[in-house]
Amino acid sequence: MAKKIGVVLSGCGVYDGSEIHEAVITLLAIDRAGAEAVCMAPDTEQMHVVNHLTGEPASGESRNVLVESARIARGKIRNISEVKAADIDALIFPGGFGAAKNLCDFAVKGAGCDIHPEVARLVREVVKAKKPLAAICIAPALVSKVLGDDKLAHKLTIGSDVDTAKALEAMGSTHEACPVSEFIVDRQNKLVSTPAYMLAGRISEAAEGIEKTVKAVLEMA
Amino acid sequence: MAKKIGVVLSGCGVYDGSEIHEAVITLLAIDRAGAEAVCMAPDTEQMHVVNHLTGEPASGESRNVLVESARIARGKIRNISEVKAADIDALIFPGGFGAAKNLCDFAVKGAGCDIHPEVARLVREVVKAKKPLAAICIAPALVSKVLGDDKLAHKLTIGSDVDTAKALEAMGSTHEACPVSEFIVDRQNKLVSTPAYMLAGRISEAAEGIEKTVKAVLEMA
Repeated sequence: MAKKIGVVLSGCGVYDGSEIHEAVITLLAIDRAGAEAVCMAPDTEQMHVVNHLTGEPASGESRNVLVESARIARGKIRNISEVKAADIDALIFPGGFGAAKNLCDFAVKGAGCDIHPEVARLVREVVKAKKPLAAICIAPALVSKVLGDDKLAHKLTIGSDVDTAKALEAMGSTHEACPVSEFIVDRQNKLVSTPAYMLAGRISEAAEGIEKTVKAVLEMA
Repeated sequence: MAKKIGVVLSGCGVYDGSEIHEAVITLLAIDRAGAEAVCMAPDTEQMHVVNHLTGEPASGESRNVLVESARIARGKIRNISEVKAADIDALIFPGGFGAAKNLCDFAVKGAGCDIHPEVARLVREVVKAKKPLAAICIAPALVSKVLGDDKLAHKLTIGSDVDTAKALEAMGSTHEACPVSEFIVDRQNKLVSTPAYMLAGRISEAAEGIEKTVKAVLEMA
């Protein structure tokens, strides 16, 4: 039977949701490896809506994270609150500001952030079950907070940004710098992370690290 | 210098805009080939907004095609009215209902559809300049209408759907059935088309035909 790989989405668009390229590249790599993606997102309002043409917040607009994530999943998506670690063989978080604005509020509060309770629950369940967990781009921040709060020693990368790396260390991670085309593995905790658009200047750079990350996840699953 | 490949987006989401997987796979294939994608979309309101979780139209909501397309382009997108055939070496239309609802109204009117004037203009300019033009999924419908109205004999595919194929023939195309992993080339007019999600059951199937399509376009560009 095909391995089931959970993919946690956070909306649809780099500035207020999932980074679309990262999410699609992840889904394609999972399918090409013969595994099955199980898309999910929390049923909650986005922190805000950003006009991606101007880069400015759109005043008076609100969108739901699950509903917008369904665009990337072509409608085939579950409420994360209904998904348990037993339902999946691994879990992957694509990046985008949604991972730091909707799955947690790291974009606003930094190391003092709060994590969406269902996201925190599933991260804990997956790590406890010794199933692989991957975080792409800025998504390692939320993993750092959950595992740091649990006093679990672990290693992650968000690329080479010094301030963000310091925030991860403040939350309890050991941060390891990593180039865009590579990934970092914490074998003890089965954690994989890759910088993607934290560093990528073009889509093919992000794709290289993400494809390697998905391969590493599937090898451990 | 890198070849510039125009990519015409029509919103962000399969049911009311660009099919996101098709669009991203197109952008990745262009970048991996060393060419440069020039994303563009018309500055116009979407026909409607569809809730992709329920599949139902969202009442009282309106979104702009250019603004939503900017999500797929990470903000780097041009108004199609500012783009001329001289600016690009080839043009590609990803699919999704947006191609049949926002770039034209084929989804509502079928063979009697109207095409957004700037979309029709650029299709005509590109074909007249003998630069390659590719249409993915349902997007061949709008190309069929423009070239059919000009009485230009040409060949396209939308896969194997009999009713849609009949509509294309009514507009002036010669329709050729095509499996999901392949593509059809009209060498005379430098037209390439592939069924993608008209037939694909999974993202890797769509990707195979799209990657071959982009390769064929670049070889002719």
